[in-house]
Amino acid sequence: MTSLRHLDTTAILLIHCPDQKGILAAVTDFINVNKGNIIYLDQHVDRKADVFFMRVEWELEQFTIPTEKIEEFFNTLYAQKYQMNFRLYFGDQKPKMAIFVSKMSHCLFDLLAHYSSEDWNVEIPCVISNHPDLEPIVGHFGIPFHHFPITKDNKEQQEVRELELLASYGVNFIVLARYMQIISDDFVASYPNRIINIHHSTLPAFIGAKPYHAAYERGVKIIGATSHYVTADLDAGPIIEQDVARISHKDTVEMLVHRGQDIEKIVLSRAVEKHIERKILVYQNRTVVFN
Amino acid sequence: MTSLRHLDTTAILLIHCPDQKGILAAVTDFINVNKGNIIYLDQHVDRKADVFFMRVEWELEQFTIPTEKIEEFFNTLYAQKYQMNFRLYFGDQKPKMAIFVSKMSHCLFDLLAHYSSEDWNVEIPCVISNHPDLEPIVGHFGIPFHHFPITKDNKEQQEVRELELLASYGVNFIVLARYMQIISDDFVASYPNRIINIHHSTLPAFIGAKPYHAAYERGVKIIGATSHYVTADLDAGPIIEQDVARISHKDTVEMLVHRGQDIEKIVLSRAVEKHIERKILVYQNRTVVFN
Amino acid sequence: MTSLRHLDTTAILLIHCPDQKGILAAVTDFINVNKGNIIYLDQHVDRKADVFFMRVEWELEQFTIPTEKIEEFFNTLYAQKYQMNFRLYFGDQKPKMAIFVSKMSHCLFDLLAHYSSEDWNVEIPCVISNHPDLEPIVGHFGIPFHHFPITKDNKEQQEVRELELLASYGVNFIVLARYMQIISDDFVASYPNRIINIHHSTLPAFIGAKPYHAAYERGVKIIGATSHYVTADLDAGPIIEQDVARISHKDTVEMLVHRGQDIEKIVLSRAVEKHIERKILVYQNRTVVFN
Amino acid sequence: MTSLRHLDTTAILLIHCPDQKGILAAVTDFINVNKGNIIYLDQHVDRKADVFFMRVEWELEQFTIPTEKIEEFFNTLYAQKYQMNFRLYFGDQKPKMAIFVSKMSHCLFDLLAHYSSEDWNVEIPCVISNHPDLEPIVGHFGIPFHHFPITKDNKEQQEVRELELLASYGVNFIVLARYMQIISDDFVASYPNRIINIHHSTLPAFIGAKPYHAAYERGVKIIGATSHYVTADLDAGPIIEQDVARISHKDTVEMLVHRGQDIEKIVLSRAVEKHIERKILVYQNRTVVFN
Repeated sequence: MTSLRHLDTTAILLIHCPDQKGILAAVTDFINVNKGNIIYLDQHVDRKADVFFMRVEWELEQFTIPTEKIEEFFNTLYAQKYQMNFRLYFGDQKPKMAIFVSKMSHCLFDLLAHYSSEDWNVEIPCVISNHPDLEPIVGHFGIPFHHFPITKDNKEQQEVRELELLASYGVNFIVLARYMQIISDDFVASYPNRIINIHHSTLPAFIGAKPYHAAYERGVKIIGATSHYVTADLDAGPIIEQDVARISHKDTVEMLVHRGQDIEKIVLSRAVEKHIERKILVYQNRTVVFN
Repeated sequence: MTSLRHLDTTAILLIHCPDQKGILAAVTDFINVNKGNIIYLDQHVDRKADVFFMRVEWELEQFTIPTEKIEEFFNTLYAQKYQMNFRLYFGDQKPKMAIFVSKMSHCLFDLLAHYSSEDWNVEIPCVISNHPDLEPIVGHFGIPFHHFPITKDNKEQQEVRELELLASYGVNFIVLARYMQIISDDFVASYPNRIINIHHSTLPAFIGAKPYHAAYERGVKIIGATSHYVTADLDAGPIIEQDVARISHKDTVEMLVHRGQDIEKIVLSRAVEKHIERKILVYQNRTVVFN
Repeated sequence: MTSLRHLDTTAILLIHCPDQKGILAAVTDFINVNKGNIIYLDQHVDRKADVFFMRVEWELEQFTIPTEKIEEFFNTLYAQKYQMNFRLYFGDQKPKMAIFVSKMSHCLFDLLAHYSSEDWNVEIPCVISNHPDLEPIVGHFGIPFHHFPITKDNKEQQEVRELELLASYGVNFIVLARYMQIISDDFVASYPNRIINIHHSTLPAFIGAKPYHAAYERGVKIIGATSHYVTADLDAGPIIEQDVARISHKDTVEMLVHRGQDIEKIVLSRAVEKHIERKILVYQNRTVVFN
Repeated sequence: MTSLRHLDTTAILLIHCPDQKGILAAVTDFINVNKGNIIYLDQHVDRKADVFFMRVEWELEQFTIPTEKIEEFFNTLYAQKYQMNFRLYFGDQKPKMAIFVSKMSHCLFDLLAHYSSEDWNVEIPCVISNHPDLEPIVGHFGIPFHHFPITKDNKEQQEVRELELLASYGVNFIVLARYMQIISDDFVASYPNRIINIHHSTLPAFIGAKPYHAAYERGVKIIGATSHYVTADLDAGPIIEQDVARISHKDTVEMLVHRGQDIEKIVLSRAVEKHIERKILVYQNRTVVFN
């Protein structure tokens, strides 16, 4: 996206294609022959679907292909030959992430703590909310806060305005940090596999509203949280990360809500981190999440 | 059950009743006044349902009430007053446990390993199966193996015969160690909250057949197993224990099946152990499982 | 501490004493007879050491003993008889917690997020640091920040000044949120079992400096964190809480440090929460942590 | 080892060498050019030590190099060029595993259960013990049991006899399934990185005898187990696998021992499985364990 590339930056290729002999050798050869120094390589073959997945990252310092030509060269020489679906990123590109919140602050705080500590290669140009409550917190971090109250009647219109605002900020992906509104299909279509949600259950258990109440009623001994990309189907998008905690008969619904918040924030932040690091590939509603 | 009580044995009371002031004091007082030495006491109050749960165990050596009179005394003096639902056990009673299996051996082996090591205060008078495959394994442990092939046509009749056999052995509870047959409601009614099943998912996710296949299709990052008491509703009975394992995109369905077996056997054995120790109370389709 | 008690508050008793018949009955009787409504009761008997531990909480609304007399009455009537070591708290007392930090912000952020969300019944009158770096963050939360640079030469003197400051704020307990200074024995003695530290290993593994480096060198497959009360022996105080995460050969030291931060903050916050809720009893360098 | 290769078998290469450009491409190229079909490939670069690790497995059906020539060819063409340390295995080779036990049966049972279910591509030609207790169990599985009582005086001599016996069976690796004897350095030297032990703590915590007692005394909140290759230093060899369980103040030493047994057997069996699958590489006292 940026036109000026740092000389000491890296290039990242995320690839998936039908599995064939020689792909891995071809891609690593492409980088080696052109004097790229590979610093990360992981691949995965889904032998049931016969699909090859790969993430490779290399240093550009002595790479002989000009950075602005890499995509074209790779496309012409390899991607077409192997029917590759690929994306090229550069390590010095900072993706722009918008956060959507409602009233609960635990996930927001955890994201902002990582941001504030510069743990992540990301920029947060804005936070959007359907409630004004969290504006002061966001303000402390010096991030613009935009309040879009949502009602049945204005939802469509507000989403249009939100999309315009996101576009004006150049937002690349969105994190729903316990945003208590269902996003319309049109909105989702504008950010395919680029809206990350946190759901407070180990999906597919307890889809929909009040999962902790449902977990309590069912008498489960383990609760959890799931981060996933948002699709048109509620809570049914590709799962990125899940985690759990043991509970007992002593835990009331309120305790489940309370204990669950720690899992939610950790699971969401891990998913966001993987997305920022370009380590996630989506295929047939499942994710490949590289280490 | 046994008429001869060891002098050095213990009595165990499992109680639940409407929560009221003074119950705990009353029960402990009953034991103390009669010179019982309490060696275990745990209680729980469900403040939402206003129900009191308790497990207390005491040494009978100097207890002044004759063992055969304890139930009557406790019933008359306390249970009626506090509308208690209670069960009295004695530590020297060995419950009799029947195991039902089909073809998979991992849960059976784990149960028999515990049995063989005398980890548990239990007797296993018989193993029942709808397939002959595991007869040799059971034979090594010197336990009678009964083969009841089940077809659509003979199911009702075979279950009647099974119940007769179980009665002849004096079986107290049943463990379904990956028994691949649905048990009829009539059969379940003969052993209420006394049939323990292992289901290979973290219920209520993936109810029914082939949960690992469903988990793979959904792309979850965590799999698990659930042990529960069998009720008339499939996979919907009170949950006793659950556990999980992390998986990744690298795991095929076969690997899930394989990795899941370790969780299944551990979760089932833990539930069986709690049942043997009389540490489980069931109330409104949920369990209280004391430590 | 406060002289005015809310009528709708609760009293909390934490007790340990030599195990004897009738203690539990006596304590619950004391509350019931005086018309207290018990809303929490948990006890534990360490049968090896023959020590009885108990936490009981009851509503004071109809309690017939005036709140300012409870301690005296309980002491006279029960504590002396049973040689009890007890502490009495009231639910409307807000303990005052000081946080010590150095340069790392992840634990501090997590504590302040809980504080800001009013998850905890606590007041944070000040944050103390040996470095100025985190002053801006603390400022956002409106909490006074005090900078006490520590050198070999001034350590003793600075600690005296810190203790004076803590006393002036009426601080009840201290949380070392990755505070990178060893506290002197004299300082520790001023807050016995009231200084909570987080150590970035599963103690007793990797005591001392750079535990993630040591864990990497040893090639472990699991890392963890431990919160404990600080005593005169380094990293050897009573453990309150521990948790772990799986790692693999792919994880560099930097990744261990990064992944460990999530565990550290969760483990520390859980320990702080238990302390605030007065659910921890210390006995012979071990903790009883009630649910 | 076997001279007759199945036509439908696979070859497995385990490689480590100094990291250099082009290794991965070279190895995959070697297989592709000679018409091998790669069915597994994983690699790892330790960027701190600058070492490259790889495991690749391919089908031999159409491979143009005769199986008995693969090692020589690979060695000449690649291994020398890249200073590779490599081992070649064939999928139809069944490694021979000896089990050493003392009196506790839980790990032995778990290994034999996997063996009996044919989960693993392994042969168990014998079980060796310093006590006769477990002979009947081993007998049920039709495996020869050899009793070698060990005293201070006869230890050296008995180990020599054990080594002779192991050699006569053609044993490839040894599993110490809670074998309560320290193995001499000479014995260890005969099976370098081929003796797998299970230690009942999360090493390096609680090295040596009675780790559960030590864990209890220290008041930890998490216990665990570690499987590792045996080296001359006690409990200090390369760690293969670890796992843990939460405990509480309620757990006595006896409960820790009991609960720990489930972790021990699972952790040991996982390590044994990885070893059988040739997925472990050892380098500088650390392991690379491929998925």
